[in-house]
Formats: sequence, C-alpha cells, structure tokens
Amino acid sequence: MSLDAILARIDDQLPTALDRLTGLLRIPSISTDPAYDAQCEQAADWLVEDLQSIGIDAQKRKTPGKPMVVGHIDGPGPHLLFYGHYDVQPVDPLELWHTDPFEPVLQDTPHGKVIRGRGSSDDKGQLMTFVEACRAYKAVTGSLPCKITFFFEGEEESGSPSLIPFMEENAPELSADIALICDTSMVSPGVPSIASQLRGMLKEEFTIHGPTVDLHSGHYGGPALNPLREMARIISTFHDDTGRVAIDGFYKGVHEVPADLLRQWQSCGFDEETYLSSVGMTRPHGEEGYSTIEQQWARPTLEINGMWGGYQGAGTKTVIPAEAHCKLTCRLVGDMDPDRIRDRLRFHVEAHLSPDARVTWDGDLEGSAAAVMNTDRPEFELARQALSDEWNREAVLVGMGGSIPIAGFFKDILNLDSMLIGFAHDDDAIHSPNEKYNVESFHKGMRSWARVLHALAKG
Amino acid sequence: MSLDAILARIDDQLPTALDRLTGLLRIPSISTDPAYDAQCEQAADWLVEDLQSIGIDAQKRKTPGKPMVVGHIDGPGPHLLFYGHYDVQPVDPLELWHTDPFEPVLQDTPHGKVIRGRGSSDDKGQLMTFVEACRAYKAVTGSLPCKITFFFEGEEESGSPSLIPFMEENAPELSADIALICDTSMVSPGVPSIASQLRGMLKEEFTIHGPTVDLHSGHYGGPALNPLREMARIISTFHDDTGRVAIDGFYKGVHEVPADLLRQWQSCGFDEETYLSSVGMTRPHGEEGYSTIEQQWARPTLEINGMWGGYQGAGTKTVIPAEAHCKLTCRLVGDMDPDRIRDRLRFHVEAHLSPDARVTWDGDLEGSAAAVMNTDRPEFELARQALSDEWNREAVLVGMGGSIPIAGFFKDILNLDSMLIGFAHDDDAIHSPNEKYNVESFHKGMRSWARVLHALAKG
Repeated sequence: MSLDAILARIDDQLPTALDRLTGLLRIPSISTDPAYDAQCEQAADWLVEDLQSIGIDAQKRKTPGKPMVVGHIDGPGPHLLFYGHYDVQPVDPLELWHTDPFEPVLQDTPHGKVIRGRGSSDDKGQLMTFVEACRAYKAVTGSLPCKITFFFEGEEESGSPSLIPFMEENAPELSADIALICDTSMVSPGVPSIASQLRGMLKEEFTIHGPTVDLHSGHYGGPALNPLREMARIISTFHDDTGRVAIDGFYKGVHEVPADLLRQWQSCGFDEETYLSSVGMTRPHGEEGYSTIEQQWARPTLEINGMWGGYQGAGTKTVIPAEAHCKLTCRLVGDMDPDRIRDRLRFHVEAHLSPDARVTWDGDLEGSAAAVMNTDRPEFELARQALSDEWNREAVLVGMGGSIPIAGFFKDILNLDSMLIGFAHDDDAIHSPNEKYNVESFHKGMRSWARVLHALAKG
Repeated sequence: MSLDAILARIDDQLPTALDRLTGLLRIPSISTDPAYDAQCEQAADWLVEDLQSIGIDAQKRKTPGKPMVVGHIDGPGPHLLFYGHYDVQPVDPLELWHTDPFEPVLQDTPHGKVIRGRGSSDDKGQLMTFVEACRAYKAVTGSLPCKITFFFEGEEESGSPSLIPFMEENAPELSADIALICDTSMVSPGVPSIASQLRGMLKEEFTIHGPTVDLHSGHYGGPALNPLREMARIISTFHDDTGRVAIDGFYKGVHEVPADLLRQWQSCGFDEETYLSSVGMTRPHGEEGYSTIEQQWARPTLEINGMWGGYQGAGTKTVIPAEAHCKLTCRLVGDMDPDRIRDRLRFHVEAHLSPDARVTWDGDLEGSAAAVMNTDRPEFELARQALSDEWNREAVLVGMGGSIPIAGFFKDILNLDSMLIGFAHDDDAIHSPNEKYNVESFHKGMRSWARVLHALAKG
C-alpha cells in the first residue's frame, strides 16, 4: 500500500530532509529589518528552487515588499492551498542565544532531539513538513494525490503589507477548495491539534510628548511634566485590579465560551501546570474568574510589548526626556472590531492625558478580527482521523491564543475556509532567543501531512 | 584706590583673558571617556602653569583617577579655598553642534556676545573668572589680599571618585576659613546670585523580572505577568493625584520654606513665565500648593530618568519581555537622609510587587544629602554687597534645584562652610550641544571676584 511506502520513505529520508531545512534556516530572512531584504529574496529563491525540484511549477512573484512564492501541481483529489511563511523574527537580544541563530544545530535535550535556530519552528520547519510530505509522495507514487497550490509569503512577521493586494490581484489563481496552514502548535506534546479558533490582533504605538526638549532634572525636576511618569500612569489605567481591561467599551463583542466547548477544552490535554511553571509563574495573571485556558484562547488582552524613554546607558543621567514611547497589541476575540477598539483605546489615552502632555499615534499598524474555523466541513474529520492514526492519540480541536490573520483573509478575499494543523511545542521559543523545533515534530509532521493528503484524496 | 585700578586692568585685559580661556577650552578634557585621559592631564598641566605664572605655588597631584590641581599663595586677609573643575561633559550628539565643541568662537547673539564651546560655562569659564581676578590683583598690587588655596578637580562630570579620598588624605593642606565655589548660575540674567541651598540626590536603578524568558504575546498574553505593565503600575504608585510622592515616610526631614525667605525668593527676579514657557509648559506640574520656585528649590522629587523594556525597533514585536527597567533620581531637601529614602523606596517597590514578580536593584549608585549654606557668616553679607556694587542690582540669596555635592563634602571632611557664587545663565546649554558662556558673565564675573576678594580682605 502506497501510504506505508510513503511513510517509510519519510523515515528513511529524515536526515536529508533535516539537511534541507538547515539550508533554509541558514538564510537570515528577517522581514522587519530592511537590512535583510536581500536575504528575504534569497529565501524565496531557495523555496522556488526546492519546489521545482519536486516538479512543482513554482515562481517568485514580485510585490512592493517581500516576494511571494507561488507553486502549482495537479492531482486527482480536491484542490488544496497550502500556506506558510519564509520570513523570521529578529534575533535580538542576540547575547541570550547560546548558538548562532542562523547556524542551525541538532541538539539532544531532556525532551528529545531538536533543531535549534531562528525560524526552525516559526515557520520554516513547519512549512517544510508539508513540502517534504509532498516530496515523498511524489518520489514513491510519481504524482501527488491532490491538486495543490503552494503559497508562501515573506512578510508574516512584519504585518503582511503585500498580502491582501496580492491575493486580490491573483484571486483566480489562488482559488482552491480549502486552505491548509501549518503555523500553529500542539496543545500539549504528542497531542495532535487542529486550531478551531484564533484570536485577532490590534497593533498600536504611541508617543507621549511633554517638554519641548530634554531637561535637566535638577533644574526642572518638580515643575516639569515628566513623560515617563505620564506614560506609566496612563498604562496603569489600562487594567483594573481584577485584570480586566478598563477601557470603556473594550468588551463589546466578547462572548462567553459555551459550556460544552469549555468542557472539551478542559480535557484536551492542555497542561496548565507545565504551561505556567515552565515560564516561572505560579498562577494565571489574566482576568479573575477565567481559567488559564480561557484567558489564553477566549479572552481579549491588552499587552505592552515595548516601553521606553530617557536614558538607558550605564550609570545615571539626570534627564527629564521630552518623549516616552509605547508599543502595544490587543488580542481580540469573538466579534470585537479592531477599528472600534483602536478608537476606544485612543480616546482613553487622550482622555487621561495631563495638561501640557500630548500624544501622537503611529498610524500604520493594522488590525485583524478573531477567526473561528468552519469545523463542520468534512475535511476536519478526515484530518482529525489521519492525525489520530499518526500520533496514536485522539486529535483535538483547540483554541489558540495567537493571531493568524491569514485565515480571515482567505475567507474574506478568496471565500476559502482554512484548516490549521501544526506541530510546534509551546516551549519552542518562537520570537525569543534559542528558538528550536523538535525533530519529532518535524518527522511526525511530515508523516502527518502524508496521511492527511492521503485521507483528503480518498475523501 | 587699588580696587578701581584692578577693575580697570580687568577691563583692559579682557581680550587677553578671553585668549587664555580659549586655550583652556581647546583641550577636550572629557572625564567620562578614558579615551581623553591624556587631555585631562593636559588641562591640569595648563592650569598648573597658568597658576604658576601668577606666582602661585601650584602642583598637579596624582590620584587613582584624574589629577587634582592644588595651589597656594599667601595674603593678609582670611584664608579662602577656591574650588572649580577642569573636566567637561561629553559632546554627543555631535551633529547638533553648529561649531566645533573644542574650537571656541566668539559670537554675537541677540542676548549679547558669547564664547561658545564645551566647558565654556561648565566650568572652565567660571573657574577662570576667579583666576583672572587674582591675576589682575597681583599685577596691580603685587600681591593678593587673602591667603588662597586653589583646588581644581578633573572628575566632577564623572562622579568625583577620587575627591573624597584625596580630601581625607590632604585635609590639613586643604584647610581654610571658607570655601568659594564658582559653578552655579544667576537666577535671572543680570541678577547676581548666591546659592544658599542646594538639593541633594539619590540615584536608583531597578529591574522587574517576570517570566523566566521573553514570551509570545499570543501564546501567553492573558495568563502571563507582563513586567512592562508591572513596571508602569509600580511607577504609577510613586505619586498621588496631587503630585506628592506617595512613598511612606518620604517627606520626613522636609521643612516648609520660612515665610520671609519665601518672600525674598518671590522677588529675586526668577521669571516663572519664561522658565515654564521656554520648555513648552503652561503651568508647574509638581506638588499642588507649592509655587514653581518652591517646587524647583525646596521640594523633593522622584523623577523617572529612564524606563525601558521589550521591543523598541520599527514595527511590532508581539513579545512579553522577561524584564523591565527603570532609572530614577530623587532630589532631596532639608534633612532627608539618602540612605533612609533608598530603604523606603525599595520597601515601597517590593511591597507593591505582584505575585511571580521580583525586583533587583543596582547597588552601586550613591546619594548625597541636601546642603544649606551657613548664610549667617559675615562673608555672605560682604559678598552680597560686593556683587550688588558690581551689577547695580541687589544681589540675592537663592535656592538651586540641582545638586553640587562638593559643598557637603567640604563641610563633612574639612569642616568648611561654602559660598557658591556663579555667573552662568540658564540658557548656557551646559551638558548639551552648543554650550556657551556670556562674555558679560566672564567679564563681570572677574570684576565680581575682585570686589569680593577686596571686601573679604577688608572684613
């Protein structure tokens, strides 16, 4: 039977597949920093060449930003669109990495063998699980069981500015029956997971302006408005004592989790104790009255991601700076409208400003609503069964705390439902120093996709 | 009469005195940067040679850091110790200078002629007003009217690490009747000012630690403790709604300004409107119930000088960082004890921490108490009269918002009262690009010191 042969080939070719992944990980395709533009092009070229080596009709496609990679291959089964991203997060703080972020290494750890390097989990390693499954399928059977469109972007970590225009301009070419996305994690190690709801996201950045110039804190300390103190005060008004966001109207469109879904979540294998203790927490710090899993998957947040101003060097500088800065993101759930939340947030900050202070906003940051998957589609049950077979563990439908706006864009622009299957671990340190991807995730991820392709083709 | 002759000589020799000052300003004696060690030695040598040219027995004296310059000359009147510093601040940001910081130029401005260059006001120009007054006195009368010890340091801008040990080791040599310090400004242009009280300073730096690693705000946003939010919340507890510092016990040792002193201050020429509006403020932002001048001179502060954590680059990074940082300084008044305030501050922060958060402190930052001058000494009235004669304007006793710890050291180590007389302007841009010193300050500063020496000698 061909599926067994395909799985055997995946097992056999694992070292070669890891070598290929290493080659891709070596390319520092950091999309947020223009200094790495050439490396983003290089990663796109690498993928085009790799897809072509499987017999896929692949091209690098220009955009005003980083290029897209689009590939097509025919097959008898349903038409799938597979999405991933080849860009990676910046690596700072570099001094906290124990190895070169762009010189991937295989390491044995107490939790198994890992491949360590920026992008290993987010998303190059995950993306390649699908590509490698296709390669094995093609090698064993001479063809692929489904018609597949490959669609890789290089701006996922920098807000995907070119994505929507590109999809709009190329909608007919990108049409398919369903989208597959491999950019999510398993709810617990070894528990295959299909993400059925994702939080949306709103990004904001603002500057509080006080004195017209930096002041000496001897000469002006006391009478002067201090923008750092003003910033701290305003940020402190964003939440009340129960951990609830205290911005008027913030919770409009937030729904409680239905009791039956909540019961499923509570038994899906999510290990609250490990989740908290692995990062040094003894308790959840979100809204009182909600479980950790609800706080993560089903409740909105307002998180400060960056805050700075004044002197940061060694020793002391007796300065009252002219400005203070804040970057924040809100995770959105249910029917929360990003544009409305942005308005409420801005109104809140402006209403809380002291006299002589003013605020300016970075107007270029986008938002995306939460996404709930159409899990009634038959592909979900087919994939769930295929994943359960591979992992010897019932696959589960879970929520996700993160935001993958692509699923919403596929629905809005291409009228395409999405199915999110990923093999990352919570401790992969994506966006952090020492990112890794478990070799088991990579290996069984490839095998999982082979099974899913097989199952979807059989229908 | 000899005083008139001395003043006439100062007038006559102004161009030569400016040439000499230019020579000293050309030496980039930046004490904070080891790259300028040789230039600090050079500035000390320059001063030794210049003092010797007046007949003063001057020497460069080794310390573990930058050398001291000590000089002695005898005279019939009281024994004065004159203090100044020959080191200067760094010049960054260099691109904001309109001229070379170490190629001084004379410029006409709407507010009169100035000499522009790093150190022109802080403190080389001020220091030389006294030296030039002595030179003129010696040239006209053949001697000096008082016994004078000259004491110049080269580490004032870098925390004076060698100062206290040097004073302790050389206390007998540095003994005198009173210390004169020329490192302060006039309360308003043309208003001769004697600083009668200076605020002390406490420096602190702390880090709030939350998660053990940087976290992804999708995956952990909600349940995770965010150290940036924690930092903002804690900073927001430092002050109450009236602008008062809300740390328990902070105001112990703070005294109200006596009504008669306050009346003097209110009529001393301090221009509140210009002081506020020149930096974009329409009102004072310190403690309610206190005037701008009290907030600046007589009330303690807690100012955030730096605050940072998380992502500061372009765009967004959805991070919950492991740490947040804060640098702060308190200005101290009256009998506030820096060590006690440090304890209270640390206790306050620790008492306000959330579960799972912890704080670490930078233990290397020093503190100094406020200094109140002994204005009952007869030298103050003699100097006040001499300054009033020179400037045709009643000289005033003023407070100072800044901290000049040397006066406290003179008292503690040498049991020496200090009298601070300076001729700088608030707009001299000390510590900033384009530092300048008004030629009027230099000229009338020399004349003022000649008059003060004359008055103190007559007693």
